[in-house]
Parts: sequence; C-alpha cells; structure tokens
Amino acid sequence: MSTYNTGSTHISQQYDNELEDLRSKVLSMGGVVEDHLVKVITTLSTTQLEGVEYVAESDHVVNSLEIEIDQICTEILLRRTPAASDMRLVLAIFKTITDLERIGDETEKIARLVLKLNDPRAITIYYTGILAISRNVRRMLSDALNAFARMDSKSAIRIAQMDKEIDAGIDLLMRQLITFTLEDVSAISAVLDAVLAARALERIGDHARNICENVIYLVDGIDVRHGETGIS
Amino acid sequence: MSTYNTGSTHISQQYDNELEDLRSKVLSMGGVVEDHLVKVITTLSTTQLEGVEYVAESDHVVNSLEIEIDQICTEILLRRTPAASDMRLVLAIFKTITDLERIGDETEKIARLVLKLNDPRAITIYYTGILAISRNVRRMLSDALNAFARMDSKSAIRIAQMDKEIDAGIDLLMRQLITFTLEDVSAISAVLDAVLAARALERIGDHARNICENVIYLVDGIDVRHGETGIS
Repeated sequence: MSTYNTGSTHISQQYDNELEDLRSKVLSMGGVVEDHLVKVITTLSTTQLEGVEYVAESDHVVNSLEIEIDQICTEILLRRTPAASDMRLVLAIFKTITDLERIGDETEKIARLVLKLNDPRAITIYYTGILAISRNVRRMLSDALNAFARMDSKSAIRIAQMDKEIDAGIDLLMRQLITFTLEDVSAISAVLDAVLAARALERIGDHARNICENVIYLVDGIDVRHGETGIS
Repeated sequence: MSTYNTGSTHISQQYDNELEDLRSKVLSMGGVVEDHLVKVITTLSTTQLEGVEYVAESDHVVNSLEIEIDQICTEILLRRTPAASDMRLVLAIFKTITDLERIGDETEKIARLVLKLNDPRAITIYYTGILAISRNVRRMLSDALNAFARMDSKSAIRIAQMDKEIDAGIDLLMRQLITFTLEDVSAISAVLDAVLAARALERIGDHARNICENVIYLVDGIDVRHGETGIS
C-alpha cells in the first residue's frame, strides 16, 4: 500500500512549491466554504439576517476559486507529467474542489431559504432542529478539511462515518417538521422550505464524506467510494 | 479557439484505441443512467412498480462503471502523458462520470420515493406533474449525451439552456403540490416525498447541464461554468 508523503521533494524546487501552493489554495477554498456555513449557523442561532445575506451574495467567491484551482491542476498535469503519487494528489484535488463548490451551492441554498422566511420568530420555530444538525455538519466539514491538510487517512475514515449519524438526525427532523403542518396547515410553505434546507445539509455531509474518501484514495491508494469498504 | 478533433490520430494506434474505448465506455455509462430514468418514467406513467424496483436495486452498476472509467483515466494520464487536447478530453471525462454517477443517485432516490408510496392511485395523484417534467429531463439528458458523443459544443450550449425551463416547471409544480395539503392535511407525507422527487429531478437537470459544459470546455477550451457566458 503506497502513501502520499507530503514532505516529498522533487528535483525541481519550483515543482514542490507549485504542489504546496496548490494544496494551500484548496485549504483556502475550504476555509471560505466553511466560513459561509458558519455565517448561516450564526443567523440560525441569533436570527440576525446579516450572515445569510452575506452568503447569498458571495457564492461567486467560491466559484472563482474552483475555476482558478482547476486551471492550476490542468497546468501541472500538462507541464509536469507527474509521477503516480503526485498524479493522485492532483486528481484528488480536482475532485475535492468540485465537492467544495457544491458545498458552497448547498450553503447558499440554505441562506436563501432563511432569507425568504425573513422572520426571526419563524426561524426559531422551524430551524432549531436544523441549527443543531448544521453544527454537526460544520464539525464534520472542518474535520474533513483538517484530514485533507494533514493527509490523515485514519482520521478521514472516522470522519466519513459521521455522515451516517447526520443522515439519521435529518430523518428524525423530517418527521418532526411534518407535525407542524398537522397542528397548523398554513405552516406548509415554511415547513417545505425547512425540509429543503435539511436536505441541503444532508448533501453537505455527503460532500464532506467525499472529501474524506479523496484523502483515503490519496494516502492509501484505495477507492472507498460506494461502500466497498463499509464506509458509506 | 481550439477544437477537440475526434478523428485525431497519434503515433501509437494503441493510444487512439484507448481514447476511443474510454469515450465509448462513458457513453455506455450514460446509456445505463438514461435507462434507469426511463424505467422510473415508465412506472410513473403505468403505475407498475417493476421499473422503480429494478432501479432501486441497480445503482451499483452505475457505481462500478464510474470506478472503472476513473481508473482508466488515471492510467492514461500516467502512461500516455497526454498533450493539451487529449488532457482536456480525459479531464472532461473525469468530471462527466461524476455527474453521471450523481444522476444515477438522484434517479435511485426518486425510485425509492415512489416505492415507498407504493400506491397506484397516489402515484397518479401526486406524480402526474413530476411525470411531465421527468420526460423533459430525460430528453435533456439524452441530448446532452448525444452532444458528448458527437463533441458538438453548439448543441451543448443550446441543451444547457433547457435547464432553466425545467427549473421554472419545477417551481410551478412545487406550488401545485402544496395545494394538495391545503385540501387534505393527511396528504403531507406524500406531498413532501413528491417535493423531494421534484428536487431530485432538478438536480438531474443540473448534472445534465454540467455534462454540456464539459463538452463546451473540451471543444472550445472555455470554461462556461458559473454563468460567465450566460449559460447558467
């Protein structure tokens, strides 16, 4: 089983710098995405809308980073003709930024749903369960990015498993949300939006798991997608 | 502006065969994914559950194809050190199979929601609007795969724009679905599931658009993601 040695050096110091720069750009992008999720959480806990207003207008930052990193990956593949382990790093990054971009999209969706509701009391009523789960999802994302930063496949395996717990929490929340409409049928619109927000959180968890799986593929050279090793 | 010439030949005939084989494997994967969507549509129009039963149990076929094609891409990158245009082909395929795999996931979700409902009359009531939209989504996916097969970026631009129409149809459908619960609050569970099925269709449209954008990137060498050219 091969490993990706983050301290490896190439004949060209410049090439090492390029790979290091690429890795740190991915972490910056992860930082921006995580910050957006934190801003949504802040709105849900304080009912102050500044956080979701910011996120609803800032997805372009994430998108630009994806395009920039994508181009750097392509250039490295073209100019450096990387050997197997570096190739795996570049391809894992190529996938990871797609997941980060989609996390950005889902976070923006939640922000827009909360903005649409635009009512502090209703946020407290319909989003309390979502707030609790979004904190867990944020922890999972943060841990996944740390595992990526340290290329720590052991942690990545553990973090990927958090996804199951989050999914179970969301299933329970969906049932709770339905009871609101049984008490008051006019709540249906707000409940539907909360359900969509919950599903967006579920997909953020899925993408965080994908990032972990990319780390495992990179470090251990095995493909753990689709549950072949019991992760998903 | 560069183009990807599908008839290009390399010094090694073997290399040409590998690239051709890779392209046809992606089209096979697309065929499987489209077939799953067609089976869901058949269930929605006939209320016979065989189609969704099959799809709910067959996602592993799509997943295996993704892993297989992913490995072929990695090997070609490692062994052949492709020049710029071939590199773009391999990377576009690398992204396209992720989209196809996610389309498979979303189709499976719809199949499971219909299976859970398990009631021909309820399928007719709650899924008639979804049936109409799913036929449009299927057409979009089919056209996107044809554009990929022919490397036709002009068609790809046109097809990518169908996504907006589908999204508008789904927004309208969501409002119609809500009215069911106003008439009968006990319909809430079925309505929520239909809403999730509609959103899954929306995401299939998004992924079909991504496939078109990959074709445009490949043929014209421009990145049209995130609406830079007004497509999305």
